[in-house]
Amino acid sequence: MAQIGEIVKNKQVILKNYVKGFPKESDMIISSDNSISLKVPEGSNGVLLKNLYLSCDPYMRNLMSEPKDTVGGLPSYAPGHPIGGYAVSKVVDSEHPKFKKGDLVWGTTGWEEYTLNKSPDSLFKIDHTDVPLSYYTGLLGMPGMTAYAGFYEICKPKEGEKVFISAASGAVGQLVGQFAKLMGCYVVGTAGSKEKVDLLKDKFGFDEAFNYKEEADLDKALKRYFPEGIDIYFENVGGKMLDAVLLNTRLHARIAVCGMISQYNLEQPEGVHNLMHMIYKRVKMEAFTVIDFYHQYPKFLETVLPLIREAKITYIEDTAEGLENGPAALVGLFSGRNVGKQLVVIAHE
Amino acid sequence: MAQIGEIVKNKQVILKNYVKGFPKESDMIISSDNSISLKVPEGSNGVLLKNLYLSCDPYMRNLMSEPKDTVGGLPSYAPGHPIGGYAVSKVVDSEHPKFKKGDLVWGTTGWEEYTLNKSPDSLFKIDHTDVPLSYYTGLLGMPGMTAYAGFYEICKPKEGEKVFISAASGAVGQLVGQFAKLMGCYVVGTAGSKEKVDLLKDKFGFDEAFNYKEEADLDKALKRYFPEGIDIYFENVGGKMLDAVLLNTRLHARIAVCGMISQYNLEQPEGVHNLMHMIYKRVKMEAFTVIDFYHQYPKFLETVLPLIREAKITYIEDTAEGLENGPAALVGLFSGRNVGKQLVVIAHE
Repeated sequence: MAQIGEIVKNKQVILKNYVKGFPKESDMIISSDNSISLKVPEGSNGVLLKNLYLSCDPYMRNLMSEPKDTVGGLPSYAPGHPIGGYAVSKVVDSEHPKFKKGDLVWGTTGWEEYTLNKSPDSLFKIDHTDVPLSYYTGLLGMPGMTAYAGFYEICKPKEGEKVFISAASGAVGQLVGQFAKLMGCYVVGTAGSKEKVDLLKDKFGFDEAFNYKEEADLDKALKRYFPEGIDIYFENVGGKMLDAVLLNTRLHARIAVCGMISQYNLEQPEGVHNLMHMIYKRVKMEAFTVIDFYHQYPKFLETVLPLIREAKITYIEDTAEGLENGPAALVGLFSGRNVGKQLVVIAHE
Repeated sequence: MAQIGEIVKNKQVILKNYVKGFPKESDMIISSDNSISLKVPEGSNGVLLKNLYLSCDPYMRNLMSEPKDTVGGLPSYAPGHPIGGYAVSKVVDSEHPKFKKGDLVWGTTGWEEYTLNKSPDSLFKIDHTDVPLSYYTGLLGMPGMTAYAGFYEICKPKEGEKVFISAASGAVGQLVGQFAKLMGCYVVGTAGSKEKVDLLKDKFGFDEAFNYKEEADLDKALKRYFPEGIDIYFENVGGKMLDAVLLNTRLHARIAVCGMISQYNLEQPEGVHNLMHMIYKRVKMEAFTVIDFYHQYPKFLETVLPLIREAKITYIEDTAEGLENGPAALVGLFSGRNVGKQLVVIAHE
């Protein structure tokens, strides 16, 4: 184990250039050129982290674009520097009163073996380790909170409602579907392969699931599964799927817009033509990001930890081993290669 | 004055055929072929109405389409029969306990001189006649309630917020802008002529207004008036304007979708490309129709009647005289010919 003060090589995933269109593995390079001192400058309030599990999340695509093309004014990654994202890490050294050596945390960090985090206030300390640590990149981390806030706070579900989820086998979708089933909803998911569709039905307990790639007419597919229409759509993909959903909403339907992954790599996003249907069905479409809901994290843990311990929630991860395999894992999100939550293991502790 | 029991000619505006694309005057005909008995069948619970003021409203376009093309499952007008809409009427005869001869009411009726309404429960009795009766087709009727519910209930405005309104000189828009000014918001409206833009600034007290037809780049126009972005967009037009607004929303912006008049006459609605911006700005877009809010009508009157009496609200009507001029007035909505609330006077009492 590395010692405080030791100077070590720090392997990193470096962004080569800003990305246009679909990201490729070759947009990133693995570098061992940099070293890092495993010591936090005294009085700096920082922490030195050993990164263990990295989370691959669709929003990271946006940060790979040239600053002028990033949506929402988020800061892009800088070419020549490591990319970043959510992770589970271990504190190697700390000058921050909230953290001490040996603590486990989750939050955003660099895609590298070690990170000096100079303002660690936004990190969450991990207090419950009777569940797999990697869960804090997904089920118990940002995607889990996203599913929880999006479903309960934005969709405001009622028992018996008809729920549709796109990208349903992903980190967020699989949880939303299970929350909806626990609430007594009828739940249908869509995904992009037979393997994923089988998972939705056999593992996650969705009432129905279909492979959108095999449906020539999404409107017809939705009419088949929702003859009475959709009360709640948990939107992860955008574009044509949203257009088809708009044709199938019930009165006072709610659409929680969590992401639009089908659009992230297009230079010109697809047009959505059926927004007029919102008027006649009085639909509410609300976009959200999890950062507005982190204050609910303790309540979330109180709800979800027992569900995990009682095996009332199933969770599937797709794990890449080693930082070297990080770029392929990340890029795979956008072709739907992953089955379940995609993460990268750098070290097990 | 017509007498109970008398049989009179009943002039009507008849839909000739289902409409495709922009409606034309020639899609309707004026007919005096029918007669009506000015007496309600005994024990029928109906009322016999003399129609005074007819309201021209954009939603009526939808009802002129073939049933398979109407959005939201609303019943189309039937070719060969009169069209219908909101109106102010006088009760000529009544078998309904709530209404008696001489009462003034507003609600939906046929575009004809007299209507036998067999289930008048949805009519509102007019109790306050110290304001112009015609106002109950607009400011004090359905469009007024629409502006009130859309602005206060859907937009949930706060003092100082930046508000943008499209079709701003129309029946609904002019009121939303004035409600927003009364609340201490910064208010910008758009309309389709210099005359209307002048009205917005000079009569209705908007902070700024512009003619969208003179703007080659709507995004740039909005950036000029909203350098810090838009908190609230009151959506009446859809299409390109919505796309431009999405590029200029502030964090947690709200879009109240009241109508999308630019889309009603297109066979294929325009695509809206910038919905992704909803995510990064966490925008809520909520469509509504006034019928979900009619229970608030008494509260609405309590708020708005004093504002009218104290001249704190200005209201502009565009009045066509005579049922014969109804089709032209209605059709004019879709080319923006009207200045202010379009109505048709059949009789003054």
